[in-house]
Amino acid sequence: MTTVLISGLGLIGSSIARIIKDGDAAVEIIGSDPDDDATDFLLEHQIIDSRVAFTDGAKKADVIILAGPVSVILDQIGELTQLSLKNGVLVTDVGSTKQAIMAAAGQLSQKGVGFLGGHPMAGSHLTGSENGTVDLFKGAKYFLVTGSQTEQQLRDFQKLLAAANVDWTVTSAETHDKLVSELSHVPHAVAATLVNSIAESVAGDPIGLKAAAGGFKSTTRIAASDPRMWTAIMMSNSKVISAELAAFQHELSQLEQAIKSQDEAAIFATFAKAQKIRKSLDN
Amino acid sequence: MTTVLISGLGLIGSSIARIIKDGDAAVEIIGSDPDDDATDFLLEHQIIDSRVAFTDGAKKADVIILAGPVSVILDQIGELTQLSLKNGVLVTDVGSTKQAIMAAAGQLSQKGVGFLGGHPMAGSHLTGSENGTVDLFKGAKYFLVTGSQTEQQLRDFQKLLAAANVDWTVTSAETHDKLVSELSHVPHAVAATLVNSIAESVAGDPIGLKAAAGGFKSTTRIAASDPRMWTAIMMSNSKVISAELAAFQHELSQLEQAIKSQDEAAIFATFAKAQKIRKSLDN
Repeated sequence: MTTVLISGLGLIGSSIARIIKDGDAAVEIIGSDPDDDATDFLLEHQIIDSRVAFTDGAKKADVIILAGPVSVILDQIGELTQLSLKNGVLVTDVGSTKQAIMAAAGQLSQKGVGFLGGHPMAGSHLTGSENGTVDLFKGAKYFLVTGSQTEQQLRDFQKLLAAANVDWTVTSAETHDKLVSELSHVPHAVAATLVNSIAESVAGDPIGLKAAAGGFKSTTRIAASDPRMWTAIMMSNSKVISAELAAFQHELSQLEQAIKSQDEAAIFATFAKAQKIRKSLDN
Repeated sequence: MTTVLISGLGLIGSSIARIIKDGDAAVEIIGSDPDDDATDFLLEHQIIDSRVAFTDGAKKADVIILAGPVSVILDQIGELTQLSLKNGVLVTDVGSTKQAIMAAAGQLSQKGVGFLGGHPMAGSHLTGSENGTVDLFKGAKYFLVTGSQTEQQLRDFQKLLAAANVDWTVTSAETHDKLVSELSHVPHAVAATLVNSIAESVAGDPIGLKAAAGGFKSTTRIAASDPRMWTAIMMSNSKVISAELAAFQHELSQLEQAIKSQDEAAIFATFAKAQKIRKSLDN
């Protein structure tokens, strides 16, 4: 019987537990998370089989899935190098950035432990184990960055998560981090700033944020996500994200100038271009 | 029998037609729009009773609702001053900015025509008459800026649109324009720029925008809206919007610096604040 340790039983980790159980109910899932309520919920619903301390669980597991924030993943990779793990164990993670994690995982490779970087490119503004679902990643890209794992371990891992119905995409850590900074990290920084900036501006208005309609809510939806998780992401991909933010700011300054000077043609060109690109994403 | 002219039969105008018919099927709705397909669709579905040229319809109407882009509304207010309208006619509009429109409507007031500024604070990234619904504005604020209309005309107009179930909110044109620039116009400019900036950055990547997940799609959803409508909005509220954009940029620069210098506490404070505010909007 395969034993899988999932460390971090939030939205992502608990969804992976559901996916594995859905694919093969015989897999033993042991879970590690500091949150008593989350863990109790998953035990009660038989989504995980038992609760373990991280180091105890790591020694017993055939597959170790690190599903906490990036900062915790980095710490746990360090912890794993100090333990004697099972022969043939696969360690993988779900962190939103990959360069820092793959660098840290070099320590595991040196000890002969198989490590495979992973990142399911989905999620939700919802958080917590009770919001996880088998379908959370359905149709989305699940990035894999190959490390010291064997080809067989990679295939076995994909089989373990077959019920997720993802689009497996092998890429380099560098390419991954640039792409997600563009598609996910920069939009997050922008949405959070929009909320803070607008909240400050409307602070003196008796109507204020209560008038916010669907457009504002949709644009800022992701700002409701877990700040701890997102701080860890920004910290571990800071160089790429700050460079992309600078490029975004440059482009926004140009639109600001066009609006200020009432340059109708330039404003229209900006909006027409954006409409065309954005519409193509829904096809 | 009351005759209502709706000029502009897109998402907003056609929703208003549906709302009026839903409240009182006996009201005659005459519609004016350059788009043959949109007009035919509404005639076929008996959402409007007949199609008219704008000036012909205006002379016959008891209520004139200007539901085109802001630039068209401004032109049509000029046209109406040249016509001899029915006694007691009410002219109103649905434009997303109010200062320029209320200033233009001064010409109508001088001729003794009742004008009431309006703006239903809802909408959709969808456009077009076929996407209009009775519920489009449900629960949202419908701003009213009083002009030369009588108290009775204001109450009659609210009764005419009773089926919309909106939250009527009387405000000044200045307060309105500042608030919507914050809640709607600035987010639009930001979302459109995000699409363009990211599309440029990922242009060389074979995966590129195809990997965009729910977060990116939600944040940029409004960028798919009609560029002509949004250009007119930016043109007619340019001073307020460019000032608010500058404030937003200042705040984003601070976050960019915090990310660049890996100032964990500052990044966390930004995200934690945004999460708290954004979550409060869903209560």
